[in-house]
Amino acid sequence: MVNRDMLAYGQARSVIRELFEYGRQRAAVVGEEHVYDFSLGNPSVAPPPEVEETIRRLVSERDPCALHGYTSAPGDPAVRERIAASLSRRFGTVCKGEELYLTCGAAAGLCCCLCALCQPGDEVITFAPLFPEYGVFIRTAGAAMKVCPAETEAFQIDFAALEALLSPKTAAVIVNSPNNPSGAVYSEATLKRLAALLEEKSRAFGRPVYLISDEPYREIAFAGTDVPWLPRLYRDTLVVYSWSKSLSLPGERIGYVYVPAQVTESAQVYAAVAGAGRALGYVCAPSLIQRLAAACCDLTADLTVYEENARLLTRELREMGYHVPRPQGTFYLFPRSPIPDDAAFSRAAQALDLLIVPGSGFHCPGHVRIAFCVPRRRIEGALPVFRALAQRYL
Amino acid sequence: MVNRDMLAYGQARSVIRELFEYGRQRAAVVGEEHVYDFSLGNPSVAPPPEVEETIRRLVSERDPCALHGYTSAPGDPAVRERIAASLSRRFGTVCKGEELYLTCGAAAGLCCCLCALCQPGDEVITFAPLFPEYGVFIRTAGAAMKVCPAETEAFQIDFAALEALLSPKTAAVIVNSPNNPSGAVYSEATLKRLAALLEEKSRAFGRPVYLISDEPYREIAFAGTDVPWLPRLYRDTLVVYSWSKSLSLPGERIGYVYVPAQVTESAQVYAAVAGAGRALGYVCAPSLIQRLAAACCDLTADLTVYEENARLLTRELREMGYHVPRPQGTFYLFPRSPIPDDAAFSRAAQALDLLIVPGSGFHCPGHVRIAFCVPRRRIEGALPVFRALAQRYL
Repeated sequence: MVNRDMLAYGQARSVIRELFEYGRQRAAVVGEEHVYDFSLGNPSVAPPPEVEETIRRLVSERDPCALHGYTSAPGDPAVRERIAASLSRRFGTVCKGEELYLTCGAAAGLCCCLCALCQPGDEVITFAPLFPEYGVFIRTAGAAMKVCPAETEAFQIDFAALEALLSPKTAAVIVNSPNNPSGAVYSEATLKRLAALLEEKSRAFGRPVYLISDEPYREIAFAGTDVPWLPRLYRDTLVVYSWSKSLSLPGERIGYVYVPAQVTESAQVYAAVAGAGRALGYVCAPSLIQRLAAACCDLTADLTVYEENARLLTRELREMGYHVPRPQGTFYLFPRSPIPDDAAFSRAAQALDLLIVPGSGFHCPGHVRIAFCVPRRRIEGALPVFRALAQRYL
Repeated sequence: MVNRDMLAYGQARSVIRELFEYGRQRAAVVGEEHVYDFSLGNPSVAPPPEVEETIRRLVSERDPCALHGYTSAPGDPAVRERIAASLSRRFGTVCKGEELYLTCGAAAGLCCCLCALCQPGDEVITFAPLFPEYGVFIRTAGAAMKVCPAETEAFQIDFAALEALLSPKTAAVIVNSPNNPSGAVYSEATLKRLAALLEEKSRAFGRPVYLISDEPYREIAFAGTDVPWLPRLYRDTLVVYSWSKSLSLPGERIGYVYVPAQVTESAQVYAAVAGAGRALGYVCAPSLIQRLAAACCDLTADLTVYEENARLLTRELREMGYHVPRPQGTFYLFPRSPIPDDAAFSRAAQALDLLIVPGSGFHCPGHVRIAFCVPRRRIEGALPVFRALAQRYL
């Protein structure tokens, strides 16, 4: 008697989650140090010490009724002002608190944007490789997902394929750069070309094609890679952010939707985002954590660890003969599977207690995702297994 | 171009919120002590001191990556076990952690239950007077709300009206006892009769009519009023809870859905609740606050203040001639409006800087809601205004 879609969502375990659970079972048998689990994107570095200090300060200094009480639905005004000031400084823009809508993380932010922008029958374009939950969230909004196939040389955009997908039904396009799972960052050239195409199509279709920039990995960019600020390049951009990765707070569920005033019908878009938050049961983002985010929004955890891990793994895997696209950010590596069947390769690795996720789950077969947000010794321990697999398959 | 439903939700300010905003503006003009704001249901007593102590202890003792990291989607297993043990003890039942799904508060829990249980075309029955957001959440689940008219003598259930509403389309019935806004508690006799009727109809319709018990006010019950544990009385009960009121943590968004194993197709219902959480973008409930709830789940804030406020206001208003139903719990009083037009009476009060909410917003015209979760001096200050209104209208 239950809703079949919800049942399917609840019963379908993701490949990632299955690998992770398998790893925990294996660890109980062979010992944790002999399981090389690269399945989950859970930050491995501690939050900056200011996180603990701020929490202590907040519970000491603030009136507890105000600290733990409801905030206004879009978030505490002082919190939003502080975050807006930080964005203004960092991106040389004029962001105001009233353009921000605080959310329980990026997933909630995406759901709010999609429900706000989509009508039944609309389409939303995503780019492979992609975060698989996009499909779920787009369906919740009553729209259909159209996947632009991966450009697997530099993991930028296949513009011919994108142009073919754009239509008067396109309500929104989602970009995720730095990208989970490819680790690529869209260059300014790529984004300018994207902006030009979307402007042209918006004019042609007589409706704005909104761009949703999902950027929880913004701060994890390597070797000075520039992560362009999209609202500067494309007028109709909504930014969805989360502090999950930058402050290592994924369980606390805190992020925002930024609806710049420049956006077409921005007041209506903002109101619809807030209305979607209401419809989905989000009363406000967690109140203590809102204040924490405001106090720490200019800080990050020690993200250099990820760059070191990326460098080590890339060098070693390339020496073994793997084809590894240049990692530019995030904590994922997305090498080519040595055999076309990435699921088979993942299973072969799993038989050696090396857990890596097949690219097909990200709409990009022929690759595997290595989540290297793990202790260094796990990477070092896994290298002989990667080598054994290379010798067998390459 | 935005979604019209979401826009309407975002633009429609609730009467409650409008009164509250008006109060803030007036306070700036005439001084806060001259505005008698009884509009909002925001707890006025501090959380118990253990809340602050527990937060300090958690940030000191726990590995910060684990403390702030993702938990499993239904919540940290140890947290769920601890809460289950507390429920088992308190209600003489056998509740297991795996029957609990932690949520970002009761609103999220209601959305998850409704999306899990409803198919398009289904109906959900609620009882006036009712929390107005029910209508929004039911619509999100694609169902239609059918409101059972209020029984305004004792604010129990009009069973003839309920029976007329029950049909093969009824997916669920929502009860909220102790009740916002009436302050009434359903007696064991009322709930047994409800259970008998729903059992009969479930058999007749060949589908279980699930009962959703929305009980954030469970612990705020006066003079030893018993708040019966519904799963003991009706097999197909889901419990939705929030610590917002009992621990004075409404901004922290923490609660649960309890799907007892006895429920028809309980495994499927639980999976669908979890699937709905996924579809709505709830990755997990806030991780630090999950641990806080587990540590403090047997405690409450000092709730006696509400009972004292209830007694004072009831006595005084009755002496002035108002008809005030006996408050049994919550922090709301729901007297009859002295004139049939409750909105007009609310406006007359507003003109004297007394802010009380018309009952029509709760599908129960002819009454007004007084949220007495306020400092005592505000109640005392408001009494002359209530008296002046009584002299004018009674």
